[in-house]
Amino acid sequence: MKPVVTIAGLSGSGKTTLLEKVVTELTSRGFKVGTIKHDVHGFEIDRPGKDSARHGAAGAVSVVLTSPDKMALIKKVSEEWPPERIAATFLDDVDVIVAEGFKGSALPKIEIARKAVSAKPVCETDETLLAYVSDMEIKGERPVFGLDDFKGVAGLIEEKVIKAAPQNSVSLVVDGVPVTLKPFIENLIRDGVLGMIQSLKGCEEAVTIELRIDKR
Amino acid sequence: MKPVVTIAGLSGSGKTTLLEKVVTELTSRGFKVGTIKHDVHGFEIDRPGKDSARHGAAGAVSVVLTSPDKMALIKKVSEEWPPERIAATFLDDVDVIVAEGFKGSALPKIEIARKAVSAKPVCETDETLLAYVSDMEIKGERPVFGLDDFKGVAGLIEEKVIKAAPQNSVSLVVDGVPVTLKPFIENLIRDGVLGMIQSLKGCEEAVTIELRIDKR
Repeated sequence: MKPVVTIAGLSGSGKTTLLEKVVTELTSRGFKVGTIKHDVHGFEIDRPGKDSARHGAAGAVSVVLTSPDKMALIKKVSEEWPPERIAATFLDDVDVIVAEGFKGSALPKIEIARKAVSAKPVCETDETLLAYVSDMEIKGERPVFGLDDFKGVAGLIEEKVIKAAPQNSVSLVVDGVPVTLKPFIENLIRDGVLGMIQSLKGCEEAVTIELRIDKR
Repeated sequence: MKPVVTIAGLSGSGKTTLLEKVVTELTSRGFKVGTIKHDVHGFEIDRPGKDSARHGAAGAVSVVLTSPDKMALIKKVSEEWPPERIAATFLDDVDVIVAEGFKGSALPKIEIARKAVSAKPVCETDETLLAYVSDMEIKGERPVFGLDDFKGVAGLIEEKVIKAAPQNSVSLVVDGVPVTLKPFIENLIRDGVLGMIQSLKGCEEAVTIELRIDKR
């Protein structure tokens, strides 16, 4: 799974604006960025009457729209996927994933807290909290960036999230759950699968391999 | 890759309406259906100012929206993915995929042709053309269903597409290209990978396994 960091904070604290600036900065530094936005109230992406909405209303569980410059997948789920599963399944071709929300998750977090919205930060100060972005005076060990210091935040993400991530070349999801592999096992799986794949015609120079096995 | 069929025909011939009725019928028969819609002019799914559009405008190459009942992935691409790649990468958890358009592709096709739109069918009568849906008199070997006979079309898809598909339990995509596996190789890869995975803690009863290897 690629490294994920989430921007947490109360509604109205400026999460999306901070995310935009941080994503722009990370992109300008040469990183491919994916994002995840959680919306407990659901989101409106299909406009009624548009083809994607018509396909979904007819019963399709997954609808893909495709064009020369972008694609969209709209997928019905019976329960919300945790961000780790989304990252492992849909965002494995980026360098870093910046999420928005998920303040109760185990993801590494940056909390944005503004005086105008709350009297103090809301995230628990466990080991997942990397830093604050705030106009408050916040005591403790964690760095506090100013509300406009998106370059400082991007730098922190580069050092503490991107560079600190294990350089996994194998991503494994079993029954929807990402599995963490020890280096020995990762090497075993990679070398075993590459050995089988590279002997197939046209696959001698394979760089990315996506394999799905369904025992049902 | 799961079986794919596409509904082809000129613009205005009623492809989306036919797709809706066929998808509803296949769903009522118990199949999980995915759909793919091609739009050469691009599509408008992000509304300007909405968070998904803001994430993308900031530079994110992939944006995921998530909620308890549906997810959306919006992904920038440098060239359009062929439907086979979309099917293998994003739609491997359905029973059948009904596409719309792609009349020049190698996918199995059902052409809808209406007198009001054209004087004759437009798809080449090669082996990929399964049937017509039309109010014209069309000669030849292929079945011709009436414009409202969506049950007949669904039955044809069930027999000629779903039941005729090889029961692959392994899907392999190498560098973005789906690879067809001979049964012997498929068994070799499945058994080899399952052997490695099932010895991992918590993976003894694995049913679906998604493995991605990136050599970069």
